[in-house]
Amino acid sequence: MIKKEFTVAVVGCGIVGGGTAKILTEQAELLKKRTGVGFRLKYVCDLRFDRARELGLSESLFVTDFNAVCADPEVDAVVELIGGKTLAKTVIETALKNGKQVVTANKALLASCGSELFALARKNKSAVAFEASCVGGVPIIRALYDGLLANEITAFIGIINGTCNYILSAMISEKKDYGTVLKEAQRAGLAEADPTLDVTGVDSAHKLAILSALAFSTDTDFEAIPVEGIDRLELFDINTADEMGYTIKLLAIAQQCADGISLCVRPSFIKKDHPLAWVSGSFNAVSVYANNLGHSMYYGQGAGSLPTASAVVSDLISLALGYRETRFDALPLWPDRNQRLPQLPLERYAGRYYLRLDVEDKTGVLAQVTEVLGRNQIGISEAVQKDPQPQRPVSLVLTTHRTTEGAVKKAVTELEQIPEIIKVITIAIVDEAK
Amino acid sequence: MIKKEFTVAVVGCGIVGGGTAKILTEQAELLKKRTGVGFRLKYVCDLRFDRARELGLSESLFVTDFNAVCADPEVDAVVELIGGKTLAKTVIETALKNGKQVVTANKALLASCGSELFALARKNKSAVAFEASCVGGVPIIRALYDGLLANEITAFIGIINGTCNYILSAMISEKKDYGTVLKEAQRAGLAEADPTLDVTGVDSAHKLAILSALAFSTDTDFEAIPVEGIDRLELFDINTADEMGYTIKLLAIAQQCADGISLCVRPSFIKKDHPLAWVSGSFNAVSVYANNLGHSMYYGQGAGSLPTASAVVSDLISLALGYRETRFDALPLWPDRNQRLPQLPLERYAGRYYLRLDVEDKTGVLAQVTEVLGRNQIGISEAVQKDPQPQRPVSLVLTTHRTTEGAVKKAVTELEQIPEIIKVITIAIVDEAK
Repeated sequence: MIKKEFTVAVVGCGIVGGGTAKILTEQAELLKKRTGVGFRLKYVCDLRFDRARELGLSESLFVTDFNAVCADPEVDAVVELIGGKTLAKTVIETALKNGKQVVTANKALLASCGSELFALARKNKSAVAFEASCVGGVPIIRALYDGLLANEITAFIGIINGTCNYILSAMISEKKDYGTVLKEAQRAGLAEADPTLDVTGVDSAHKLAILSALAFSTDTDFEAIPVEGIDRLELFDINTADEMGYTIKLLAIAQQCADGISLCVRPSFIKKDHPLAWVSGSFNAVSVYANNLGHSMYYGQGAGSLPTASAVVSDLISLALGYRETRFDALPLWPDRNQRLPQLPLERYAGRYYLRLDVEDKTGVLAQVTEVLGRNQIGISEAVQKDPQPQRPVSLVLTTHRTTEGAVKKAVTELEQIPEIIKVITIAIVDEAK
Repeated sequence: MIKKEFTVAVVGCGIVGGGTAKILTEQAELLKKRTGVGFRLKYVCDLRFDRARELGLSESLFVTDFNAVCADPEVDAVVELIGGKTLAKTVIETALKNGKQVVTANKALLASCGSELFALARKNKSAVAFEASCVGGVPIIRALYDGLLANEITAFIGIINGTCNYILSAMISEKKDYGTVLKEAQRAGLAEADPTLDVTGVDSAHKLAILSALAFSTDTDFEAIPVEGIDRLELFDINTADEMGYTIKLLAIAQQCADGISLCVRPSFIKKDHPLAWVSGSFNAVSVYANNLGHSMYYGQGAGSLPTASAVVSDLISLALGYRETRFDALPLWPDRNQRLPQLPLERYAGRYYLRLDVEDKTGVLAQVTEVLGRNQIGISEAVQKDPQPQRPVSLVLTTHRTTEGAVKKAVTELEQIPEIIKVITIAIVDEAK
C-alpha cells in the first residue's frame, strides 16, 4: 500500500500543470529526501508542446492522447489540471476506470460532480485527492479530513477568492471604485480578462460547496447556494463602514444549524478585530469554528503556479503513502457516503446588518424608518446621518442588532414603500464569534 | 492496520487529560460518525480519583498502576499527559516496550528526549504522535509531516506561548508594565503561579526544538537554542516601537541557512503589516515560509483543556488509521532518523534591529553613535530622539538596516564605552519576508 516509487501523468499543462511538472522534475531529489518516495513524471498530456521549452522540460514527456496515458500500467496517478467540466470530467472518469488514482484542482467540477466521481473511484478501488481545489497550497482540506477530525465543526468563514480580495483591498486602500480597480488588476495580470467567475462569487461558491461537504459530512447542493458578487459594491458604503470599524470582504459562510446547514457567498462587513479582516491583497484564509478547538485559521496564497502545485504534489505524496486506504476508504465524511443535509434558505441566516438608506432631506423620515424596523423586531445598534455631498441624496446609515435575513428583507420591502426613501442598500455584518 | 475499534488509556488527568477523557466519553458518537472508528476509554490513570466526579466520569475508569495499564493487551494506545521529564518518560518507555502506541503533549520531554523515544518506538514496532505538544489543537505538526511535504521549508516564525502573548498584548493595550500585567494574569488564571517556564521563553524553545526537527529533518539540540524571555522588557520600548509601526511579540524563529540552521526565542518587534502582528491575547500562530507555497500561517488556541485535547484525540484517530505505517515508519523526516544539522551561533542571525540609547543630554553624542555604527557597517533606517521625561535620561531611538547580530553586539560593546551613554537596549525587528 505504501509505494516507494510513484509514477505520475499530468494532464493539462497550464499555470498549475506547469508548476506541478516543474516540482516533480526539478525538485525530485527534495521530494525523495522529504518523503522517502521516488516520484517520476512520465507524461505531460497537452496539445501545446511549446510549453516544454517554456518550462525547461524535456519534450519527450509530452503526449496528446490522454486515453493512452490512462491505459499505461506504469502510471500510478493521473493529475487532471485542464479545468472546466467536460473534457476534464472525461479524463478523470477514464483514469478512474483504469484504476488510476486521481489528483485534481478542479473546483467547478467537484462542486457539481464530486459525489459521482468519488463513487466511481470507489467502484474502481481508486481515490480522488483535491487539496489544490480550495485555498491553493494551504492544507485546509487536510484540516477537515485529518487535523480537526476530533471536533464537530459548527461554522466556517472563508476569504477564498484572491482576485476579489485584491480588488476589495485596493478599493479600500486607494479609495477607488470597483470598475477602476478591476481594470488595473486586469492590466497587472491579477484578474482574468473575463473575471465573471471570480467577481460574481461563483468561484467562491464552488470552494464553499467542497469545504462544507467535508466539514458537515453532507453532499452539498452547489446550485442551491445563494451567491452575490462584489461587482455592485459602491465605494461610499466601503468608506462609511471603514469609518465605523469594519472592512469589506467577499465571504463564503457556512453554519451548521439544528435543522440543516446555511451556506452563502456575499460581500460582508467584518469587524476589524476579526483575524479575517487582516487578510489583504491576493491572500486567502479560512476561519474554522469547532466545538473543542474553538476558532482556528488557515492563511496563505490561494492561487498561483507553485503554491497550487504544492497542494497537487502533497496529494501525490499522500496517495503514495496510503491516502486511499487510510482516508478515502476509511472515513465516512466524503460526500458520496452521505445524504444531503437540508440547505436552509437565506432568510434563516442570522446576524447583524448594515443598512444605507438614501433619502430626501425631509423631517420625519427617520421616525418612519425606526417604526418599520421596530415593527419587524430589528434593533438599531448605531445610526449615522452622512452630510449631503454634491450629487448625492442624504444617506442614513444604520447597523442593526442581531436579527434574521428574513426580517431584514421584509423591512426593506416596507421601507421601499416610503416615498421619501430613494434607495436601500443592505450588507451583512460578520462579528467575531465569541 | 486500520482499527475500527480503538482502546485508549489516559495517564495523567489534569487539564488536558480531563479534556481528553471527556471527548473520548461524551463525544464518542461524534467521533464514530466522523471517523468510522469506535473509541473506548478503558483507563484513566491518576492518583486523584476525585477528578472522576469533577469531570462527570465513571470512577470505575480510574486506576493508579500505569504498569498494569501498559500491560493490558486490550489497550491500543497510551496517552501520556503527566508532564515533566521523569515519571512521564518512564510511562512512555513502559508503554512503548509493551508495544503500545503513544500520544503525548509533553513538549519539555520531546524537546530533550524526542529522538530517544522515537527510536524506542521503532524498536518496538510502535509510534509516538505529538500534535498536542505545539500550538494546542492547531494542526501545525501535521502541516510539517503532511500538508507542506512538497516544499522545502526555509524559515518559520511562531508565537507559541499564549501566556507571553497575553501579557504583551495587555502591556500594549493597557499601557501597563510587565510586573503589573503578570500579576493580573495570574489572578485571572491566565498565567501560572510560577510563570518561569513561560515568561523566560523556555516553553517556546521546547516547541521550537520540536517544530524545527520536523521542518528541517534534523535532531535539534534544545540546549543550544538561545533564549530570552519577556521579563525584562520595558514599557518605554514597547510604546516607542508602537509609535514607529511595530508591535512586540515573543517570537520563536527558525531559519535554514547554507551551513546550518539558526534558531532563537526572544522578544522581537514585528511590523504591523505582518500577519503575526495581529495575533493577540492568548492566541498562537506559526508563519511558515516554504519554497513553493510561500508564506502560510496557522492560527488558533495554543493551550486550554479542550483545544489541546482536540489535538490529542486527532492523534488517536491517526493512530487508528495507520499513522505508524504511513507516517512514522514511511517518512524520513523524524529526528531519530537524521543527524544534527549545525545550529549557528546567534551572531550569525541576520535582520534589522531597534536600539535605544539612554544618553546624557550633551552635544556630540549622536555623532559618536553614528561613527560607531558606521564603523561596524550598520546603516541607520530611522532615528528619533525622545523628549526627556521626568526621572528619565534622553532616549535616542534608532532602527537599523539589515545587519547581523554579531555586528550589533560588537557595536553595542563599543557604544557602552562612550561615557555619555548610560544604557543600550537592543531588540530584533522582524519584517514580512517578501
